[in-house]
Amino acid sequence: MSAPGPTPDRLTFEHRTLPQRVLFGSGSAAANLREELEQLGSRRPMVVVTGSAAAVARRLLEGTGVAVWFEDVVQHVPVASAEQARAAAQQHDVDVVVSIGGGSATGLAKAVALTTALPVVAVPTTYAGSEATDVWGMTQDGRKRTGSDGRVLPRTVVYDAELTVSMPVGLSVASGLNAMAHCVDSLWGPRADPVATGLATEGVRLLAEELPLVVADPQDLRGRERALAGAYLAAVAFAAAGSGLHHKICHVLGGRFDLPHAQMHAVVLPHVLAFNAPAAPGAARRLAEALGAEDAVAGLAALYDELDAPRSLRELGLQESDLPEATELVLGQVPPSNPRPVDRDSLAQVLRAAWEGDLPGTGGRPV
Amino acid sequence: MSAPGPTPDRLTFEHRTLPQRVLFGSGSAAANLREELEQLGSRRPMVVVTGSAAAVARRLLEGTGVAVWFEDVVQHVPVASAEQARAAAQQHDVDVVVSIGGGSATGLAKAVALTTALPVVAVPTTYAGSEATDVWGMTQDGRKRTGSDGRVLPRTVVYDAELTVSMPVGLSVASGLNAMAHCVDSLWGPRADPVATGLATEGVRLLAEELPLVVADPQDLRGRERALAGAYLAAVAFAAAGSGLHHKICHVLGGRFDLPHAQMHAVVLPHVLAFNAPAAPGAARRLAEALGAEDAVAGLAALYDELDAPRSLRELGLQESDLPEATELVLGQVPPSNPRPVDRDSLAQVLRAAWEGDLPGTGGRPV
Repeated sequence: MSAPGPTPDRLTFEHRTLPQRVLFGSGSAAANLREELEQLGSRRPMVVVTGSAAAVARRLLEGTGVAVWFEDVVQHVPVASAEQARAAAQQHDVDVVVSIGGGSATGLAKAVALTTALPVVAVPTTYAGSEATDVWGMTQDGRKRTGSDGRVLPRTVVYDAELTVSMPVGLSVASGLNAMAHCVDSLWGPRADPVATGLATEGVRLLAEELPLVVADPQDLRGRERALAGAYLAAVAFAAAGSGLHHKICHVLGGRFDLPHAQMHAVVLPHVLAFNAPAAPGAARRLAEALGAEDAVAGLAALYDELDAPRSLRELGLQESDLPEATELVLGQVPPSNPRPVDRDSLAQVLRAAWEGDLPGTGGRPV
Repeated sequence: MSAPGPTPDRLTFEHRTLPQRVLFGSGSAAANLREELEQLGSRRPMVVVTGSAAAVARRLLEGTGVAVWFEDVVQHVPVASAEQARAAAQQHDVDVVVSIGGGSATGLAKAVALTTALPVVAVPTTYAGSEATDVWGMTQDGRKRTGSDGRVLPRTVVYDAELTVSMPVGLSVASGLNAMAHCVDSLWGPRADPVATGLATEGVRLLAEELPLVVADPQDLRGRERALAGAYLAAVAFAAAGSGLHHKICHVLGGRFDLPHAQMHAVVLPHVLAFNAPAAPGAARRLAEALGAEDAVAGLAALYDELDAPRSLRELGLQESDLPEATELVLGQVPPSNPRPVDRDSLAQVLRAAWEGDLPGTGGRPV
């Protein structure tokens, strides 16, 4: 019991594994959802569904008694929306909340669970990943509050790649790279641990191998399946490791400048990786392997080329004149766990490069 | 909803994530154990401890009121032992079972939890991994019954690499390679899924990198820590994926011929890998990467050389004349998920090679 105190190369962590059942299979969502509702003894489910997925949702639940359909799903879960959904749940004596859609539908179901403790069954149709975490978020007056609570963790997730086929290719790429960002940031997040690292690495491998197949043939379920599985691993890893530098940057950009979520994450990721990689050789080596490349930064750039991924914050609508404010806002939130020290100048360079869209590792910019 | 039925390259799985809190830190076991007992509101813990760890256990719990110490821990959890421990728990009005030791101590605590539903806090001192699973096992009249039950899953695991320093180097190697076998078999087990694959791959990486450090300097906590974390990931992966060919072979050899557990697993692993690798190129490629080698079979052989690992079933006491019976017993248990078909001849060859101790991939035997 005379060990020296913890040093940077020592391993100390607390990991909480969250209980969840995942049913994964293409074309199986209707059967799996039905079986799960039966297991839960549900007689009065509420279905929270993004408008664009409403027709699919009705097909999935055909013949099942649904107590109430709630289709008024909007981004960022406004508190008013949450209150409407909670009122509907109470009024219709609901016993389970089923969410069908992307992060916004899952988020709204979580908001209902937060105050009602109703079990949630999530059926994701994108790679957003919210379904695998106990994190909730709501916005009011332009401010987003978030928290984590065991009540909002979906009891069961039903994954069916067929439900993701309707995602346009561009959104599939952006959403898939948002999932990739969950993985990469998990390697140096504040609670990074070996579980998160293992899942994140596998997530990168799946996404890097399969997103090109999604682009090449958006109808091919094999690529869709493995990309969806990668997004699931990404979310579990990220829930464990917490927000690293990448997510702090995107939290600021998304909150203050209202940039499109998935695209913004896709644009920022290569710049954070290029900045951190020299100071995180272990993470860089495992990313390179998972990307099937000699070098992590160059490997990610090659993938972006192949996917024709979003490149610049400029094209997403950020003004050049917003960069100084963005830099200041992020500077106050840099996680102490970041492998490389961040100062105003280096951060401003990272944000400018992301704004201009010079992809690191392609020769356009030294790394 | 018109997808073709599942084909071998399609991804279908059910994954259950088991809720558990893991506290990992060298020199922190006493504080973490105390904190956990407080959180559980425990006033009357029972401590199940392997005799050899009794002194350490008393030091960890110094000043904590322990209702009863149970030190009569023997291998394979005989039913009589379980009944004694349950009676002690009842008689002393116990509210939590703390296990301190290897797989046998954890197993006995699980047997108590199985009938009493008492929460278990596990403090492992080897790389056995039982602490991360909901699997229990008990033996009576030479037969082992096993099952899985949520009640036996330890609520919390307290890992402290200092507690593993007393493991002799030879046992550290064998126990570490037993953990490695959990990882490798998870890649083709009956319920193999992307979560298990990610954790297993990371487990191989940690064990392969760190076991040589344990051998080179058994007192160095850095190697010990990462090997212990690798063993934890191995157990989580294996609990998800289930027994593949390797574990079916070892179950027969251990049950019928009573060979030493960890050493037997260490001996058998390279032979199962060499047999399956040509039919599982994806698994072989990721293993090679995790082993830091060009080839998985050769990479494992190099590691065995470096670790001076146990080589032959002969040296563990199996008689040559037992090989035919072993072959027949295993043949009836080959998992349908095995990537390469197994017949009597090929299985007999695998077992003979393991008996003779020709390490595949070293030139002693073609792979």
